[in-house]
Amino acid sequence: MESQALQDLIRPYGETCFGCGGANPHGLRIKSYRDGEEVVCTWSPEAHHIAVPGIVNGGIIAALIDCHSACAAIDAACRAEGITLGSEAAPLYVTASLQVDYLRPTPHGVPLTLRAKVAELSPRKIVMTCSLHAEGKETARGRGVFVRSKNLGAI
Amino acid sequence: MESQALQDLIRPYGETCFGCGGANPHGLRIKSYRDGEEVVCTWSPEAHHIAVPGIVNGGIIAALIDCHSACAAIDAACRAEGITLGSEAAPLYVTASLQVDYLRPTPHGVPLTLRAKVAELSPRKIVMTCSLHAEGKETARGRGVFVRSKNLGAI
Repeated sequence: MESQALQDLIRPYGETCFGCGGANPHGLRIKSYRDGEEVVCTWSPEAHHIAVPGIVNGGIIAALIDCHSACAAIDAACRAEGITLGSEAAPLYVTASLQVDYLRPTPHGVPLTLRAKVAELSPRKIVMTCSLHAEGKETARGRGVFVRSKNLGAI
Repeated sequence: MESQALQDLIRPYGETCFGCGGANPHGLRIKSYRDGEEVVCTWSPEAHHIAVPGIVNGGIIAALIDCHSACAAIDAACRAEGITLGSEAAPLYVTASLQVDYLRPTPHGVPLTLRAKVAELSPRKIVMTCSLHAEGKETARGRGVFVRSKNLGAI
């Protein structure tokens, strides 16, 4: 697994975003790393990230899958186009749609592992799949569609 | 629109949940109200709920749609079965899947309005659709599948 987190290279998401932003004081602050053809993130929820005691909130799970997959998509686009992630030329992608299947309750109080990989890639649109595991079991599975955006104000 | 928020009647979600819980110190604390055949929630994001400055984070939008729709589904089940919401007999539902389409960027700094309604209802499974509006425009659209659960540990 590589040692540089994608969020530390992707601007502005890596600074401000609720899921990704290292400078967001109340965000999830995920860190995602290339691991071969996948991108991996290990993250532990805080006390308030629950649905009910002992179970992680489904919205938080969606947020994790969205942000992790978005950063992985941007990284995949850069690799496909020979662009250095973090450079001025690096493209940005925004989420067009997100599907999450909740396979079983996600236990709170243990590290969660996200693994994302490319399902489809074109310059305009990238489809990512992402799995969430806890205690060795897959608890949720996501599919995100990300579209290229030069202007974050325009999906 | 009725004056009693669904979250004030639905236990334990209305107490602990990141999206719904009035007693969750760092949650979204949404309040959803019946309005005819729909359930409505107006909510304003906090400063850290952004993707980039001026734009609401997509994961937060997913969390809003999930929790609002789940509470609306539980309310719909109770109405269909003649059960008083908040009573011991009231069923609980958990999210089996969530689909969110992001139609345009959701502006930060203005109130957001969620409207959910039933698309399919059976005792075992309820499908809800939910729209998110900001400044009079629909910015996101969701579809949640909720399944009945006597035991929150078992989807």
